[in-house]
Amino acid sequence: MDIEYRPATESDLELLMAWRSHPKLYRSLYGQDGPLKWEDHLSWWKQRENRRDYIITVNEGERWRDVGVVTLSGLDTDRPAVGVWVGEVTLWGNGVATEAVEFAVDWLDDHGYPVVTAEIFEENASSQHVFEKVGFTQVEHVGENRIEYEKKL
Amino acid sequence: MDIEYRPATESDLELLMAWRSHPKLYRSLYGQDGPLKWEDHLSWWKQRENRRDYIITVNEGERWRDVGVVTLSGLDTDRPAVGVWVGEVTLWGNGVATEAVEFAVDWLDDHGYPVVTAEIFEENASSQHVFEKVGFTQVEHVGENRIEYEKKL
Repeated sequence: MDIEYRPATESDLELLMAWRSHPKLYRSLYGQDGPLKWEDHLSWWKQRENRRDYIITVNEGERWRDVGVVTLSGLDTDRPAVGVWVGEVTLWGNGVATEAVEFAVDWLDDHGYPVVTAEIFEENASSQHVFEKVGFTQVEHVGENRIEYEKKL
Repeated sequence: MDIEYRPATESDLELLMAWRSHPKLYRSLYGQDGPLKWEDHLSWWKQRENRRDYIITVNEGERWRDVGVVTLSGLDTDRPAVGVWVGEVTLWGNGVATEAVEFAVDWLDDHGYPVVTAEIFEENASSQHVFEKVGFTQVEHVGENRIEYEKKL
């Protein structure tokens, strides 16, 4: 399976919203406890800054398709954060998220950032496993139920 | 809220799949008991014939967006069927599905079909209500748990 990345654009908004409205997805997203409403989604899109959102695309032999998102935020700080989610839920477990995190880490390394962070829910063992495979380690607990991870570059 | 319809194209496949992978959606879709797999979805797309699938688009003042699908199938018969689902689950209850069914009925009427049918799960009261509002009536039970509806044109 080949994997490539492209910047998300406004024409991806419906797809992003559909993915983020799946219960398996929004349970792991901070600040979201149900399917999205359009006005909130559009408001998030318009207000985003100092970040890049890349659509993850894969090709299993015949056709490229969009399957998820990898995000880089806090790009105006020296501790940017990476987030990742695969919207195509039947593709989970195929290593796509791990490759996407590696892509984000390489991007930040290339751009001179000294460290990269990630915040993951305590109960989200599969996401913790993804970041640990890429070399992230636990730093501290954040809020009630999240863990901050980091990786030195 | 304005509503318009456009034919679905291959570039809508990811969005269609994301919508149809939401538990609130696939529970009401015949022949599907979990989130879709890409190969099955692509296979369905390539094998479809004698049908039209329209993307439902709405505008609440600022921007058109895709929110769901209305389907016309069996167009090579004199008893075509209509199906509808709103993928944007937070938009349910706003009358979008009802308007989309009216659009499909008008299309079939304009094209000279004598009757239009629909198959709905017995437990799907909200969908039954949508079709009854447009003038469909129950015809018979189909299989173990579905009801056929029809409307004379």
